[in-house]
Amino acid sequence: MTTLGRSAAAIAWDGAALRILDQTRLPFEEVVLELGDPAAVAEAIARLAVRGAPNIGIAGAYGMALAPPDPAGRDAAADLLRGARPTARNLSWAVDRVHAAGPEEAEAEARRIHAEEDAAAEAVATRGADLLAPARRLLTICNTGALACGGRGSALGVIAELAERHPGTSVLACETRPLLQGARLTVWELRRLGIAHHLIADSAAAGLIRRGDADAVITGFDRMAANGDLANKVGTYGLALAARAAGIPFVVAGPTSTIDPDLPDGDGIVVEERAPGEVLTAGGAPVALPGTPVRNPAFDVTPAELVTALVTDRGVAAPLSAATLAPLLP
Amino acid sequence: MTTLGRSAAAIAWDGAALRILDQTRLPFEEVVLELGDPAAVAEAIARLAVRGAPNIGIAGAYGMALAPPDPAGRDAAADLLRGARPTARNLSWAVDRVHAAGPEEAEAEARRIHAEEDAAAEAVATRGADLLAPARRLLTICNTGALACGGRGSALGVIAELAERHPGTSVLACETRPLLQGARLTVWELRRLGIAHHLIADSAAAGLIRRGDADAVITGFDRMAANGDLANKVGTYGLALAARAAGIPFVVAGPTSTIDPDLPDGDGIVVEERAPGEVLTAGGAPVALPGTPVRNPAFDVTPAELVTALVTDRGVAAPLSAATLAPLLP
Repeated sequence: MTTLGRSAAAIAWDGAALRILDQTRLPFEEVVLELGDPAAVAEAIARLAVRGAPNIGIAGAYGMALAPPDPAGRDAAADLLRGARPTARNLSWAVDRVHAAGPEEAEAEARRIHAEEDAAAEAVATRGADLLAPARRLLTICNTGALACGGRGSALGVIAELAERHPGTSVLACETRPLLQGARLTVWELRRLGIAHHLIADSAAAGLIRRGDADAVITGFDRMAANGDLANKVGTYGLALAARAAGIPFVVAGPTSTIDPDLPDGDGIVVEERAPGEVLTAGGAPVALPGTPVRNPAFDVTPAELVTALVTDRGVAAPLSAATLAPLLP
Repeated sequence: MTTLGRSAAAIAWDGAALRILDQTRLPFEEVVLELGDPAAVAEAIARLAVRGAPNIGIAGAYGMALAPPDPAGRDAAADLLRGARPTARNLSWAVDRVHAAGPEEAEAEARRIHAEEDAAAEAVATRGADLLAPARRLLTICNTGALACGGRGSALGVIAELAERHPGTSVLACETRPLLQGARLTVWELRRLGIAHHLIADSAAAGLIRRGDADAVITGFDRMAANGDLANKVGTYGLALAARAAGIPFVVAGPTSTIDPDLPDGDGIVVEERAPGEVLTAGGAPVALPGTPVRNPAFDVTPAELVTALVTDRGVAAPLSAATLAPLLP
């Protein structure tokens, strides 16, 4: 009944409630939350207690399984869950799928989504490690491991598979301001996996890439348009520019459930602006004067032409374009 | 006897000691340190209580003025001061100049360096504002104001002059991890100057530039080679790539004292790696598990070809190259 990735227990369904490891408390405390209704799930998603595009979808699916059986109650739950993170493609996709399955089938459908995401992540890990076989020094951003996705994760799943095949594999992990998912979560996972790593400030990535300290950049993605433009954690676009300038691969990895074929290109992606307090503090400490005005986009958009390869559960698109992406769509 | 910039008192010589505003305590506390010997000055430079290439030079000059008069004592003081920050060009330049002036002339020479830096900064501010006249929305990194330089600063001096000329001027200020000089110092200065601003995570800069939210990027520089390659705060290179991709100007501003004509190109710049603790904490709070391995380069190198224009006290080089830079060298 539990849903352990190989590195961490991020999300589990016990038949009556959704149990998640509260990622806002990691790495210093391991606190499991028991979420018994859609509002609690939506709140956990909104405050990033559970995060990562695939895991948000899984959580949203179970959130719908927790909805009351009446149509009005289910509609309200779906609205609440979908609105918890507006940019993540998987959330609305998973919520809609469980909603459409009807109240009798909701739990089974949520479990199916979860199992599919686990299987998709493992396919991504294997394909990505095949593609990146010569790369030993990987640079990544945010957290894309078992805390974010099914199985061992998307980009971090690829890295984990590479490290299993090649003991010399090492990682430069961007700390990922403002919420420090790299420093808090990716480092925690890499340590548990026994993979060599160094933590870096996000702004150090471009210079280290230019100096030849990374063989490839690999990231996840939170939403991809039909032409391959993608939204991912803010900072991803800068990594793509630096990889291009240095002539190293920039690879994105994730399940096809994160691709939105109805969105023609990246211009249509709504980028969520989050609260100023995330930037005005770091690790809970104030870093600027109270009341300082803030811009806090949670994502940026990377154009498909900067992506060397997309790795999915259904295959690889390289170079990435509408034409190479189309055969991978469900 | 004080040396107030228009926005803040960063550094002052009182005839017997160097008084500096401890920048590690800003913006939450304004603490003035009185430094009475070269070791105290070197320690303040090393721990970034005083920082910014020009101000490090000014502090190093006064540090040499505080050296004992005997040759061995002066040599030891010069070694100590030069070693406090290995990358900053101005430090060794200023220390050597006061050293060469001899013990009788040391204080007068240090005062001359200080006055020259003030005048140079004002010339940079005027020339930079002329060059960037149409730009209203500037993006910058680190702190390059009166806390860092003579006068009103280098890049921030240009912004201050633009804001005096055009009331609609606004700033996107990168927080500048790991030590958050943008969040702590630039925001503090901008507020005192009454200039509109938003604080952003460093990783948000590239995406905001791509979206058209900045008209130009302007930064200082910590060391420039004879071909125009420059070292500046880690993250600068990524901003230059983003500006190039978006087709907006990337301008660097500073006094010619920061240019090292003996260094042929950026490959020869020694990039200081600072302590892991800077990355493992933010604003004093832990952000990753203790013992996490860290890479912490304090600078990166931006190649001259990405620089739209260099603005100095002795003129403008645009485009930046060995040929356009040569006439500006002292």
